[in-house]
Amino acid sequence: MYRILEILRREQGFLSGQDIGEQLRISRAAVWKGIKKLREEGYEIEAVTNKGYRLILHDTMYNEKEIAQGLSTKKLGRTICFYKETTTTNGCLREIALDGGDEGTIAVAERMTAGRGRRGRHWEAPAGSGIWMSILLRPNIFPSEASVLTLLAGLAVCQALEAETGLSPKIKWPNDILLNEKKLVGILTEMDCEMQQTHFVIVGIGINVNTTEFPEGLGDIATSLYLESGRTFSRKNILQRVLVNFESLYEEFIASHSSFAPFLFRYKEKCSTINQEVKVLGKETFFAQAVDITPEGELVVIRKDNGKQEVVFSGEVSIRGGKQGE
Amino acid sequence: MYRILEILRREQGFLSGQDIGEQLRISRAAVWKGIKKLREEGYEIEAVTNKGYRLILHDTMYNEKEIAQGLSTKKLGRTICFYKETTTTNGCLREIALDGGDEGTIAVAERMTAGRGRRGRHWEAPAGSGIWMSILLRPNIFPSEASVLTLLAGLAVCQALEAETGLSPKIKWPNDILLNEKKLVGILTEMDCEMQQTHFVIVGIGINVNTTEFPEGLGDIATSLYLESGRTFSRKNILQRVLVNFESLYEEFIASHSSFAPFLFRYKEKCSTINQEVKVLGKETFFAQAVDITPEGELVVIRKDNGKQEVVFSGEVSIRGGKQGE
Repeated sequence: MYRILEILRREQGFLSGQDIGEQLRISRAAVWKGIKKLREEGYEIEAVTNKGYRLILHDTMYNEKEIAQGLSTKKLGRTICFYKETTTTNGCLREIALDGGDEGTIAVAERMTAGRGRRGRHWEAPAGSGIWMSILLRPNIFPSEASVLTLLAGLAVCQALEAETGLSPKIKWPNDILLNEKKLVGILTEMDCEMQQTHFVIVGIGINVNTTEFPEGLGDIATSLYLESGRTFSRKNILQRVLVNFESLYEEFIASHSSFAPFLFRYKEKCSTINQEVKVLGKETFFAQAVDITPEGELVVIRKDNGKQEVVFSGEVSIRGGKQGE
Repeated sequence: MYRILEILRREQGFLSGQDIGEQLRISRAAVWKGIKKLREEGYEIEAVTNKGYRLILHDTMYNEKEIAQGLSTKKLGRTICFYKETTTTNGCLREIALDGGDEGTIAVAERMTAGRGRRGRHWEAPAGSGIWMSILLRPNIFPSEASVLTLLAGLAVCQALEAETGLSPKIKWPNDILLNEKKLVGILTEMDCEMQQTHFVIVGIGINVNTTEFPEGLGDIATSLYLESGRTFSRKNILQRVLVNFESLYEEFIASHSSFAPFLFRYKEKCSTINQEVKVLGKETFFAQAVDITPEGELVVIRKDNGKQEVVFSGEVSIRGGKQGE
């Protein structure tokens, strides 16, 4: 039946049952049976007398098959675990990783019931509106080098959204993505490691694509591509573009011996945190002016209280006066 | 039946069935039934006419109950998961941790079938001869700070072995323990974390206690307390002392905001790596003279090839001319 789908996809217009049958050397009855099954799976296939069948493509078709279709990566997304509903894609992928899953395996969910942000915060992930995806990586790096991957994931998503939507999202250091100062994308990178060796890294990416509304309280700090542009977008196209971009950056990262330096210029170009007033939430909480990013990916700030320059390598920042939360 | 065990343990000599029955307000038949059950569990209980019962304690009694008996820690080892045989205790404890296991939970095995050293190397762990234990910690620290925990585990074990055996094992930076230049203890610390927050740390400790022989090839580089001293030791006592020492260091670590500095003197005192010629196996492999440990726990070396001083914070070292492997 998927061969019928391929033919309809290629044609993009109407194709008679007889034509399909001839191409596949099957009977018209078999074509009809296949069409029926595809419809049962959720594909919308129009049938018009004397014209034949036509596949109607829209974003609600979002599954393993669709995501794999036309994906041009070598590794990322070559294995896709798709869930209609799951707790968290990071959690699913961790199980897969512990069972020996291959690098590049992705977990994608239509809906997450226990979506998490960093530090265990809740992440709202309703069905049909966003991309909730996790990517499994097995880089041969020291655990301390993994933080660069989370910066690169942010960069890959930012570039993908720009290319697919024409909008201009910005990165809030280290790896949130904002649009009009509201949170559009969250990235949660987790890893399993020894002190001197990384077993695996899971990069979880949540993108609010066609979300029409947020629960009370969240609307002031979160947004979606739809809410900012009035348009809906194909999750499949965005997801594929994210994978392609991230794979390219990841290969460059490995080739450059886990250095962030080659990405510094590209990252800074998209990062809106520089020159903003920030609140740094680490062991100590203080206000500061963000002034630069180091070649290691750390944030350089000048403290308000003592005027001293400091390098923030972990901890979090929130933008003073910005709309998004911590 | 465990109340009978307690009474016999307290007595240390012979005690008649009648005495035991009176103390517990149970019949002599019930006492006999309890004794029978204890024997079935492996306890050796001598019975002599007109004298009564006597508990014979030796190291083969090594189980949940025995390890808990008299353990004076507040947190470490308050929950004990004991396995007659398992793949790896780190693996078991990871499952427990992911299911929400409490800090301080330990996994102990009589035998490990898939014991691992660092970087996936095999670790020989036969039954009845060693301590194969993993400890679950949930410190609120940055992942980069976790490496101090592995140094402290090494220190705790070294001090415990010294106290329990009178021998003088030494730490090979960062956390192997050697006796007469052969490997006596291996420590494998693993963790699960986000980029800026540690979910949990598992400290796996393998101690060759009463091991009488090693497989071919290993005998030149590995040793046991028995092989070096000709004596056998109680695994229970050593295990308990390790937990007590490690808990104390761990509390100090948390109280000092994850700093290694307060432990530097104690650690250096036990560390035999300083002043030795080492081979550093990192991204680059080179020979060097180890000269110091920094307050962050890193190894300071002077390179042989260019005479420059370098700080080794990850990677591994092997001692040149030493007997133990990498």
